[in-house]
Amino acid sequence: MSVPHLMTLADLSVPQINRLVRHSFALKQLSTPWLKPMPRRSMPSITTTKSSTGTGLKTKSKKVNDLRLPSQSLFNKTIALLFSKRSTRTRVSAETAAVLLGGRALFLGKEDIQLGVNESVRDSARVLGGMCQGIFARVGDHSEIEELAEHCPVPVLNALSSLWHPTQILADILTLHEHSHLFTSPSPSSTSTSTPPKSLRVRELPPLPPLTITWLGDSSNVLHDILVSLPRMGHKVRVGAPKGRAYECPEEVWRRVVELGCEENIYWTSDPREAVNGADVVVTDTWISMGQEAEKEQRLKDFQGYQVTEALCAEGGAKENWKFLHCLPRKQHEVDDEVFYGPRSLVFPEADNRKWTIMACFDLLFGKWDLEAEAESYSRKSEES
Amino acid sequence: MSVPHLMTLADLSVPQINRLVRHSFALKQLSTPWLKPMPRRSMPSITTTKSSTGTGLKTKSKKVNDLRLPSQSLFNKTIALLFSKRSTRTRVSAETAAVLLGGRALFLGKEDIQLGVNESVRDSARVLGGMCQGIFARVGDHSEIEELAEHCPVPVLNALSSLWHPTQILADILTLHEHSHLFTSPSPSSTSTSTPPKSLRVRELPPLPPLTITWLGDSSNVLHDILVSLPRMGHKVRVGAPKGRAYECPEEVWRRVVELGCEENIYWTSDPREAVNGADVVVTDTWISMGQEAEKEQRLKDFQGYQVTEALCAEGGAKENWKFLHCLPRKQHEVDDEVFYGPRSLVFPEADNRKWTIMACFDLLFGKWDLEAEAESYSRKSEES
Amino acid sequence: MSVPHLMTLADLSVPQINRLVRHSFALKQLSTPWLKPMPRRSMPSITTTKSSTGTGLKTKSKKVNDLRLPSQSLFNKTIALLFSKRSTRTRVSAETAAVLLGGRALFLGKEDIQLGVNESVRDSARVLGGMCQGIFARVGDHSEIEELAEHCPVPVLNALSSLWHPTQILADILTLHEHSHLFTSPSPSSTSTSTPPKSLRVRELPPLPPLTITWLGDSSNVLHDILVSLPRMGHKVRVGAPKGRAYECPEEVWRRVVELGCEENIYWTSDPREAVNGADVVVTDTWISMGQEAEKEQRLKDFQGYQVTEALCAEGGAKENWKFLHCLPRKQHEVDDEVFYGPRSLVFPEADNRKWTIMACFDLLFGKWDLEAEAESYSRKSEES
Repeated sequence: MSVPHLMTLADLSVPQINRLVRHSFALKQLSTPWLKPMPRRSMPSITTTKSSTGTGLKTKSKKVNDLRLPSQSLFNKTIALLFSKRSTRTRVSAETAAVLLGGRALFLGKEDIQLGVNESVRDSARVLGGMCQGIFARVGDHSEIEELAEHCPVPVLNALSSLWHPTQILADILTLHEHSHLFTSPSPSSTSTSTPPKSLRVRELPPLPPLTITWLGDSSNVLHDILVSLPRMGHKVRVGAPKGRAYECPEEVWRRVVELGCEENIYWTSDPREAVNGADVVVTDTWISMGQEAEKEQRLKDFQGYQVTEALCAEGGAKENWKFLHCLPRKQHEVDDEVFYGPRSLVFPEADNRKWTIMACFDLLFGKWDLEAEAESYSRKSEES
Repeated sequence: MSVPHLMTLADLSVPQINRLVRHSFALKQLSTPWLKPMPRRSMPSITTTKSSTGTGLKTKSKKVNDLRLPSQSLFNKTIALLFSKRSTRTRVSAETAAVLLGGRALFLGKEDIQLGVNESVRDSARVLGGMCQGIFARVGDHSEIEELAEHCPVPVLNALSSLWHPTQILADILTLHEHSHLFTSPSPSSTSTSTPPKSLRVRELPPLPPLTITWLGDSSNVLHDILVSLPRMGHKVRVGAPKGRAYECPEEVWRRVVELGCEENIYWTSDPREAVNGADVVVTDTWISMGQEAEKEQRLKDFQGYQVTEALCAEGGAKENWKFLHCLPRKQHEVDDEVFYGPRSLVFPEADNRKWTIMACFDLLFGKWDLEAEAESYSRKSEES
Repeated sequence: MSVPHLMTLADLSVPQINRLVRHSFALKQLSTPWLKPMPRRSMPSITTTKSSTGTGLKTKSKKVNDLRLPSQSLFNKTIALLFSKRSTRTRVSAETAAVLLGGRALFLGKEDIQLGVNESVRDSARVLGGMCQGIFARVGDHSEIEELAEHCPVPVLNALSSLWHPTQILADILTLHEHSHLFTSPSPSSTSTSTPPKSLRVRELPPLPPLTITWLGDSSNVLHDILVSLPRMGHKVRVGAPKGRAYECPEEVWRRVVELGCEENIYWTSDPREAVNGADVVVTDTWISMGQEAEKEQRLKDFQGYQVTEALCAEGGAKENWKFLHCLPRKQHEVDDEVFYGPRSLVFPEADNRKWTIMACFDLLFGKWDLEAEAESYSRKSEES
């Protein structure tokens, strides 16, 4: 059985991406009731099932309706979080997701382990992979995680590298689906599908119409995973980035874009107003990543005019009901308070969804080694069969 | 449903404080048997109940009597420990308490997250609160935790701030109750109430007679929570602190003291001998807090004569059976070895009780959002009804 | 009940050592199926037993055969990992082992707690021991862990000190047993005992013939625990170490060697070729430990000729099928790639076994306080009686 890894969404087919997003949405619904405050008299009692399909732990209570545990595929298991740089949202998502899957995340920061310093990456990969059941790695140069995956006997999931940031884009896609009613202006009928039939335990993911998504920023790992996924899923991507080598797409990324046939749905410009033209969604990110502090002044100058504001989007001709995404943390020069804290902003639901999409990756990749499988049916019927 | 937070005991009524202390005592009794060594042949087997009031996990075994699990209100949940400064006892209490409640504590130190540095406190509060089910925060300036609570969608509990230290005082109150027989000199009948009726699963908390409690030290966060709680609960507080601005009670704290009608039971002096007069309990703490290292020499000079010793208490006229509390870590200039390691010292039971009182706060605040509720009845009867 | 501690294998009898190794082998077999990927349709459902001997959690499923949980003796419990120095393998082993035993490891590095700096070791021992159910300590000078154990109300296990490294040697012994068929050249019958009778749930540990084990390196904590254990268990130990005070066995260690009657099976030489003569197993370790970086140049000079290679072992007359052990991390000057990554190398199974031997120590020492007991019978029969 070959070990599955996930380095970028470029590694996945469109059905696989959709499956991960659907699975995230289901896990979110199964988990949320467990995370609510439990009034004293309605604490669920945990009972067991004889089913062969679930984990068998179920709850019963007079006041709380039956709660179904999400997948416990990490029961007894430990996932190493190998983080050479700080990344709060990614880390907290992973730690809380592991708990919900019945497992444990073990955070190892740069104080705890330095890949390739005291020991070769190869040896560390083999040793950690012999003790843990998965590695969620946030490295510097992308080649580090490639080397890790090459030698690791358990799955490696890319938490963030110089080139790619797959789990961020999964969260963005889930967020767009959840808010799809905001993009389909006239007919409200599409939201009605979100009421589940009585026999179903979880609602199905609302479908997403083809959107125009504008990126304002440099060619970062976040953009790269957008470029290899959204165009294949029927969306148009418009990139607004300053001119100059520092802001261009690296050749090895663009090669994947072309291989996947994504380039025809990508439009690249250095004029931010042109970039937002027709946009349903405007996305930006930090303009000065960790390690680029020295270039701060130059970068701020190059990004003049790129701040996301009502004015920019009106001038550029974004759609009337355009929405805003940002992977956080946010600096004010990237987007003003009116947009960031206003009704267009989906940034906090987007942040919450980091957890659910990482949970789906952990379940399928680390728990089941099975990204290929059909998404689980969450109907009560199939559960009890 | 508005989100409950706990910043200081000044926020609570006396019945609420008593309820938290009683709940701590009950959780301690329910948890302790689980933490004992388990001889091989008497390992409990974990079975389930159909009760709607408890978590439903119970144990059966021929050798071990039925063990009842403490509240599992954090099952599947993660509590963020946001600690900008080191605080070993508070941290270890929180981490071990979360385990007992079925959940997980996620420690984030100043290397992991710096409130307000890379991201606004508002944004961090919203993001962490969207992923975790509670925040236990140990900040610098008290305004930081106020801002955190303002924007956080889940409860925030003050682990320690420049102004307040509520969980420490809860531990002190529990410790005094548990040792109440030491203060009621002649009649030993009060301790007989500690034998529980057969139908009860946990002993009731022994009542505490009105005491005189002496604080020797500066006006620290520990003292502040003493000042807003013990006087309302029928105890007298005598403060011995050097003269000078650095040792005075901050105005915003004293305002709360007055609002709560506590000041009439507080006596303030700069003579340590006068302070210990009539004392049932003498409490001290570090005289040089983190960040005050520069003032060390001046502070040690100002505190000359304040070291807690048999001689000081005899000269000052403390009660014959006075007892000693200290929130640790301890320096020798604060209290000598004879007192600290002697029979008057309750410091280690006090330290142990940090865990049980934090566990009670976690259960009611993070698990149930319900500090208002009547304390649970721990009788077997109510459990099975 | 006196608190058991484990500082070095010198504290244990040979039957106790064998018992720990057998228990490790059993826990490994019970745990491994739980750590495999769980295909969706064959996820075990967790059910309960009424047995008084096990933990009572069992699984049922159509596709997966009944899985038995390993000992859950740390259920609800927290083990403090008090690490004043980095030690990745030891830490990750401990964290993952605690999860498998139903408990939680709480890592406290030198940023989190500094023994004896802010607080006396005595006070820290008492406080941590009041909150946690065991301490796994990796200290600098061995006297620190002795002082910790003296004052700690719960068991202390030595994770690594200046003098001893007991859990490493347990892993080495387990690894040798598991590969014993490699040392008993002609008759393969010994391996046939590894097929368990149908009524047994776990295979018995294959017996180990008397071996000659060569150590090339200085007199480190790893060697010290070899010196007080393997010679008593019927093996010969040959030490190759450069001449000079820095490489000699400390007097207090050698005293234990002599007391245990081990010295007659130990041969000491400064000629690496002489050291490997007749060796079944060649072991080495880092030649420059943490804190010895200043002496690096001198040490590398003194160890010229000690690199483990095919040539050295051929020249010195090692057994034809000699095997190689190394506790990692490895530097190339200690052993060349041909040996390290070749078929003689047992280093990665050895690293994996760190987890299972630490798990056994955690179960017996922290969970049961019972190193004296007979190893558990893992037969299905006894489980259900």
